[in-house]
Amino acid sequence: MRRVTVHITLKEGVLDPQGKAIQESLNSLGYEAVEEVRVGKYMELMVEETADMEQRVKEMCDKLLANPVIEDYRFDVEEAEVL
Amino acid sequence: MRRVTVHITLKEGVLDPQGKAIQESLNSLGYEAVEEVRVGKYMELMVEETADMEQRVKEMCDKLLANPVIEDYRFDVEEAEVL
Repeated sequence: MRRVTVHITLKEGVLDPQGKAIQESLNSLGYEAVEEVRVGKYMELMVEETADMEQRVKEMCDKLLANPVIEDYRFDVEEAEVL
Repeated sequence: MRRVTVHITLKEGVLDPQGKAIQESLNSLGYEAVEEVRVGKYMELMVEETADMEQRVKEMCDKLLANPVIEDYRFDVEEAEVL
């Protein structure tokens, strides 16, 4: 079993109103040092290991997990401890 | 300027219906090797450096970014390249 961690972020130049709202909230709470916030998604997938796993994960990101028009993604595959 | 990356994940044992829906969608698309999906948030904050920055980021997570009742968080501080 492998743990695949996926980071999905908005492409540079794509507006992030959610991040902007968080930044303004932080500023108004007194955290003026925060100058920008960008919000993305983080997923952990437990995947049974196969030879073509990396290719399959890439497909999953392209087809379902991310929107390639406005989002970038990256993923890492790690050994998952079996409990 | 520092880039602070924040990962917010559901605590173990907290149900994740969004992750479950993604897992079932992946399975029905033919990715049967995916056995579990957990969804979290990922944020990048650009923060002006101060001496107590780590403490301030911890406060921001506790007060606004995460819900400590059901979520865990972790963060890393890196040097941000100035463009």
